Amino acid sequence: MEDLLRNDERIDQLMQYDLKIIQSPTVFSFSLDAVLLGDFAQVPRHDRANIMDLCSGNGAIALMLSQKTKSLVTGVEIQERLIDMANRSIRLNRLESKVNMIHTDVNEIKNWIRHDSVDVVTCNPPYFKHTKESAKNPNQHLAIARHELYLNLQELMKATAFLLKTKGKAYFVHRPERFLEILDAMREVNLVPKRVRFVYPKEHKEANMLLIEGIKNGKETGFTVLPPLYVFDQQDEYLPEVRRMIYGSNRKES
Amino acid sequence: MEDLLRNDERIDQLMQYDLKIIQSPTVFSFSLDAVLLGDFAQVPRHDRANIMDLCSGNGAIALMLSQKTKSLVTGVEIQERLIDMANRSIRLNRLESKVNMIHTDVNEIKNWIRHDSVDVVTCNPPYFKHTKESAKNPNQHLAIARHELYLNLQELMKATAFLLKTKGKAYFVHRPERFLEILDAMREVNLVPKRVRFVYPKEHKEANMLLIEGIKNGKETGFTVLPPLYVFDQQDEYLPEVRRMIYGSNRKES
Repeated sequence: MEDLLRNDERIDQLMQYDLKIIQSPTVFSFSLDAVLLGDFAQVPRHDRANIMDLCSGNGAIALMLSQKTKSLVTGVEIQERLIDMANRSIRLNRLESKVNMIHTDVNEIKNWIRHDSVDVVTCNPPYFKHTKESAKNPNQHLAIARHELYLNLQELMKATAFLLKTKGKAYFVHRPERFLEILDAMREVNLVPKRVRFVYPKEHKEANMLLIEGIKNGKETGFTVLPPLYVFDQQDEYLPEVRRMIYGSNRKES
Repeated sequence: MEDLLRNDERIDQLMQYDLKIIQSPTVFSFSLDAVLLGDFAQVPRHDRANIMDLCSGNGAIALMLSQKTKSLVTGVEIQERLIDMANRSIRLNRLESKVNMIHTDVNEIKNWIRHDSVDVVTCNPPYFKHTKESAKNPNQHLAIARHELYLNLQELMKATAFLLKTKGKAYFVHRPERFLEILDAMREVNLVPKRVRFVYPKEHKEANMLLIEGIKNGKETGFTVLPPLYVFDQQDEYLPEVRRMIYGSNRKES
């Protein structure tokens, strides 16, 4: 295992899924957003589904999903450095037969995957608009993961709708301040928003994340707002629901 | 006061506002929705604003708003029977100089009020689509208040945008299942959705109401999802925030 980690990489445990995931503060670290999306996304348990995670980064969400299904999970990531990290995490967890990574731009996905062939798409995309004025991280790895340098909302939704079968499901985590744009971009490609869950850092605070489910060519009726999810209690400790998503039980981190 | 009440009418107290409001189970009764909207809507305290409540019913929201401002509040209602109830409630509370009612169809509001002249519009509209198939209350008074027989979402938003000054604010209470349509109808007339608060009957339940604020000709940035509002605790008692809206303090109804 001597070449498992490079530079400032470390291994984080995700006990809920019995996973070890290679992280790097200067390249890519998954965070709570990924854990929330991994929990929110519903995947078939059987082995006949095609499941894809776009903007997969170090593969954290793909790895989590693989623990919820017998089907193959494919991650798509544009940064070669992250593909490399993800592949080492896949080997570390001995999940080579269940998770694979494609190194490509999501905008080029049609060169890799047939249209209307995927059952579930997940994505924790870059959150921030790319404008000339927007301050970006000078670290290019982090800037690409956080800003829409290579993929904006419209492109993400277009790729997702291209991939999904009719009635296939898409799951995204994003920021509430972009909620209207998200809805527009989804509906533009007939990815019908069906359920949303807002995530609040703690009681009495505004939502700072949202989880949304869309159905390709679904009917636009019955939009549902799921129970709110609070992350922290007043002592800044994870609340039980979040603790369960990370640690797999209600016990606190030891 | 012998002719104050007719048929099955009763007087409900809204202690938070020191108001008495004439209600009737067979004609119109305001409910929690109205109380939530009355609380959510922000009105200037001064006496120079124009404030209008559309689909005003028995005037409950107009009466509540009048207690939050020195400005005149005008209610608009299509049903003459409800105008009559509202006017008797106005007299009962001695608010003749602060609240008045216009008996008209909201679609005809341009015959009564100048465009771009109103600072705040509120509305607790009919929630249910009017289709041939939709089951409606055989009681015509209740059917009009609940179903979009005379006013649909698009018409409501058009009238609201007509009335409001640029930067004027609109506040609506509605159902989450129609959230996408509400957003569409608002944006269609450049009534930009700015803040939403979802209302949940209790913990772990889906939202069953939403409160939304729009700004006429506002900028479409910074959409905010406010902290959730839970109505009941696990014993089906009002939680403190709702109790305060109704009773004006945290004490329980005696």
